[in-house]
Amino acid sequence: MTDKFLKQLNEYSSLTEEKMAEYLDNSGIPEDLSEVMKYSVMAGGKRLRPALVLSCSSLLGGKIEDAIPFAYAMEFIHTYSLIHDDLPALDNDDYRRGKLTSHKKFGEDKAILAGDALISFAFEIMLEACKNMNQTKAAMFISQAAGARGMVAGQWVDVKLNGQFVDEKTMEYIHLNKTAALIIGALKAGASCANAGEKDIEKMSAFGREIGYTFQIIDDILDVVGDSAELGKATGSDEANNKTTYVTLFGLENAKKEAERHTEIALEQLSEYGENAWFLRELAKYLLNRKK
Amino acid sequence: MTDKFLKQLNEYSSLTEEKMAEYLDNSGIPEDLSEVMKYSVMAGGKRLRPALVLSCSSLLGGKIEDAIPFAYAMEFIHTYSLIHDDLPALDNDDYRRGKLTSHKKFGEDKAILAGDALISFAFEIMLEACKNMNQTKAAMFISQAAGARGMVAGQWVDVKLNGQFVDEKTMEYIHLNKTAALIIGALKAGASCANAGEKDIEKMSAFGREIGYTFQIIDDILDVVGDSAELGKATGSDEANNKTTYVTLFGLENAKKEAERHTEIALEQLSEYGENAWFLRELAKYLLNRKK
Repeated sequence: MTDKFLKQLNEYSSLTEEKMAEYLDNSGIPEDLSEVMKYSVMAGGKRLRPALVLSCSSLLGGKIEDAIPFAYAMEFIHTYSLIHDDLPALDNDDYRRGKLTSHKKFGEDKAILAGDALISFAFEIMLEACKNMNQTKAAMFISQAAGARGMVAGQWVDVKLNGQFVDEKTMEYIHLNKTAALIIGALKAGASCANAGEKDIEKMSAFGREIGYTFQIIDDILDVVGDSAELGKATGSDEANNKTTYVTLFGLENAKKEAERHTEIALEQLSEYGENAWFLRELAKYLLNRKK
Repeated sequence: MTDKFLKQLNEYSSLTEEKMAEYLDNSGIPEDLSEVMKYSVMAGGKRLRPALVLSCSSLLGGKIEDAIPFAYAMEFIHTYSLIHDDLPALDNDDYRRGKLTSHKKFGEDKAILAGDALISFAFEIMLEACKNMNQTKAAMFISQAAGARGMVAGQWVDVKLNGQFVDEKTMEYIHLNKTAALIIGALKAGASCANAGEKDIEKMSAFGREIGYTFQIIDDILDVVGDSAELGKATGSDEANNKTTYVTLFGLENAKKEAERHTEIALEQLSEYGENAWFLRELAKYLLNRKK
């Protein structure tokens, strides 16, 4: 990774974190509820989805201030999904990013409500920020990505088939919805905030789908060969849960090749954007080569 | 209640139910997820919030087709909140409207996800329906009503103080947010779908607040004197849970008077709308006199 890329990623991340904390502190949300929301929101993470909203909007000529509310709304939605996924009735995880999960720290009742609060707040922020129909469309893209035909659908099928062998097609369905959908939604929202037309939105969507697959394949690989201290979570959980992954289906070597193939297709989507697309290009490579 | 009122309420309810079932069946949601969502959505109920959206929009000159998606989005949000409230970690209820609650029927994991799916789907439907900024604003009003400064805030404080004595001010905060907020949101959304101005939106909001209080006071009263078969749920749960209610604070007689007082103020808000506001007027009285 170039320093320029890491610096820009860091800038997007700082900007998002600053605004998220500000919003949660001065929102009129009951203080203790806002604390529980913040505990998970501010637990770190790559802030990948906000970076996608902001960089995509910027690439297509949008103003950063028009895209920012959509950037942290994405992070709130991502965080709500993690809080609910970690619950005892679902993945039953005690740690995330090296910290106790929300329900371990505050109790299940508060974790459920903090998740509910985060998804609602995400839509509130977006809708309060809408000044035109392209922004309304950006919120729509995000709702489609997050919902019962997107992320929740992926999580549903994953939960339903938990521990069973799944074929390649079903695994792809899960990943496309559980992981790639929000990434695609972030890019489409960023594009729409920049008043982009259908063609650009389509290109960004295709780019998102491919880096979404890459992201998930690398996740599967890191669960086998990653360093749990660096990852901030236990490795080997897929094997322990008898989970079908890219690695169990194709082996480590081929899984890595598959990730490379998806990254190639992702990069092809950017060909016509020239040098301006440098950040998304480097991001695609970063997701392929990440160690955590 | 006049026959005219009950007929109209029934028409709004049928229209909403028909559209909700249609949407859930033909949406591309995984079939078994859609079944779990439908189980709770189609469990009956007064369909009060959709009726508020539709009648308020109609009163202010709106077209019914512009308001309908917001009407059933409201019902999806209401239903998601019931599914999550019923969970073991929250109210731990086994029955609702005479049927097993979602988590008793399908398991906690599926109930959590069905709730998540319903709130997301509500925003998806609204945002896909938005053709202008007034509809975007309607979705915004609903997001504010449902969120961490609205319904979830009320539920949060209620859960936090569960079993403790609460003073009148805190109880009002809980009710204003947990119950009245969605009712207010429905009316503001209906008004906005009809392209209403600030003044009308304010009037409808004040009307909603007052019938919201009435609704909750009557709930408290019915929990003491209501018929559990007619209500479709157990009575006496407030006493069993040591809950502060209008009845425990003021006694049955005064609670009823308080409900009447709020209804009076509600009706005053409608004075300038003349005969056109007949449905909302009768609705306010219906909520005051309901037995279930």
